[in-house]
Amino acid sequence: MDAQLRIERALDAALRLGESTAAPPRLVAATRHAVFPGGARIRPKLCLAVAWACGDDAPTVSDAAAVAIELMHCASLVHDDLPCFDDAAMRRGQASVHAAFGERLAVLTGDALIVLAFRTLAAVGGAHAERLIGLCETVAAGVGAPDGIVAGQAWECEAKADLATYQRAKTGALFAAATAAGAQAAGHDAASWRALGDWLGEAYQVADDIRDVMADPAWLGKPTGRDETLDRMSSARALGLPGAVAHFDRLLASAIESIPDCRGAAALRALVHAESERLVPKAWVGRIREQAAQFAPAGS
Amino acid sequence: MDAQLRIERALDAALRLGESTAAPPRLVAATRHAVFPGGARIRPKLCLAVAWACGDDAPTVSDAAAVAIELMHCASLVHDDLPCFDDAAMRRGQASVHAAFGERLAVLTGDALIVLAFRTLAAVGGAHAERLIGLCETVAAGVGAPDGIVAGQAWECEAKADLATYQRAKTGALFAAATAAGAQAAGHDAASWRALGDWLGEAYQVADDIRDVMADPAWLGKPTGRDETLDRMSSARALGLPGAVAHFDRLLASAIESIPDCRGAAALRALVHAESERLVPKAWVGRIREQAAQFAPAGS
Repeated sequence: MDAQLRIERALDAALRLGESTAAPPRLVAATRHAVFPGGARIRPKLCLAVAWACGDDAPTVSDAAAVAIELMHCASLVHDDLPCFDDAAMRRGQASVHAAFGERLAVLTGDALIVLAFRTLAAVGGAHAERLIGLCETVAAGVGAPDGIVAGQAWECEAKADLATYQRAKTGALFAAATAAGAQAAGHDAASWRALGDWLGEAYQVADDIRDVMADPAWLGKPTGRDETLDRMSSARALGLPGAVAHFDRLLASAIESIPDCRGAAALRALVHAESERLVPKAWVGRIREQAAQFAPAGS
Repeated sequence: MDAQLRIERALDAALRLGESTAAPPRLVAATRHAVFPGGARIRPKLCLAVAWACGDDAPTVSDAAAVAIELMHCASLVHDDLPCFDDAAMRRGQASVHAAFGERLAVLTGDALIVLAFRTLAAVGGAHAERLIGLCETVAAGVGAPDGIVAGQAWECEAKADLATYQRAKTGALFAAATAAGAQAAGHDAASWRALGDWLGEAYQVADDIRDVMADPAWLGKPTGRDETLDRMSSARALGLPGAVAHFDRLLASAIESIPDCRGAAALRALVHAESERLVPKAWVGRIREQAAQFAPAGS
């Protein structure tokens, strides 16, 4: 089955775990709104790609791992969009959850999604209990303190923070969890797969910083220029756009190099390449380099 | 070991899982602030009491279950106190998390606590993998949609809600999870223990409604009169104070009656009795009944 279709179906099945006539209808609607339609689903795709590369001998476990990772990502978007953080009215081309359902339901929807991520893992049941415990740990570490995505977001509440630590936690941690979980879901050791997620996560965060400056809000599905407005740490602000693009290229090269030798290596390399073009289109890179050359001091 | 001490130690050990020099210091501080000092710790006490009644053959699993339940409770308090919900400045006799650390860290602290609850279960490791998977499911069901405490809170965002459904989800669900988890932690079937939690949870919510009218805010450690101010569903508002007290008594009697015949039955009955006096002191009941008699129509 096509990975995208597999992910959408698995997400739908997971949401149904929390839906019944006993549930508050607006919470159910807000939760669906937070998950569908999705973005690029890059984290669960990465998770499934690694699981496939490792043999994918228990597809229900891989599905649960991919779903858990994506639900955590959706939860973080819902809470990041809250008025007290980014106060974003748009997300994935539609109203953000708090804009559509109010702040209270946005808080609760994020909470419900975090819980549902773990419930989805537990619901796979006893046949792979050992793997599921490992997956719970991996997912929890990618999200919680000390260095998961929640901690990453919390660095925005500190007077002083290191940009690399902040980005590794805010974005890298869930990418690393995605590759580790993919391996664990297929009964493999997570350690040799973590580097791929680390590199990709860092690259993704740098791309996000570049997109915040370069993208058209309509194309991106959310407002741009937010890092500047909210005085947020950003690679584009720290390194300048040409520096950020060069950094992005180096990170992607490291990601590709880190892929262990396995049956899925070529497919994974292709996924990373496609993703890089989606994240930072070549046309932008040309424009950024042209502008940099134009403003460079003579002789440099 | 004394149950209270055992719980505080296990909570401290769980918090350490999310603490390191790599963690954002204010998130670490806010998370400790949300958990210590605690309230009555009635849910984890109940969980351990049931585990003990069922033999408590794997104390590390029982500890993890009790901790997971209490961390979920703490998370719900942090999010319930947010400006968009109760906007409570005080909790457990100190500043609420959002009052002390700001709204953003309060959102993140709640998220981190939910994640930590599951991480604590996973961290027990493989020796009891089957039990831990069951515990994950029980805890997730007690917290998430369709009818856990998050769903309970979400009923406050609906135009119409049934009081009993609301209360069962908002409070009962986590009590039922506490008794079910206690049994599961000791390798027993959860089903025969769920009723105790259901009854106690409902009783607790009714007591909370009574306390919101009757208690001194300093004694309670949080503001009172909030149900009226926030126009929230409440037994005291729906049944009147004497009706709410009578309802509370019936619920406690049902709770005590539901305790299965076991070695811990007497201890559990004692715990329920002590809790009932703590929740709704006899002095209040006397005052409520006196007032009711005074205002009753002649001849009634």
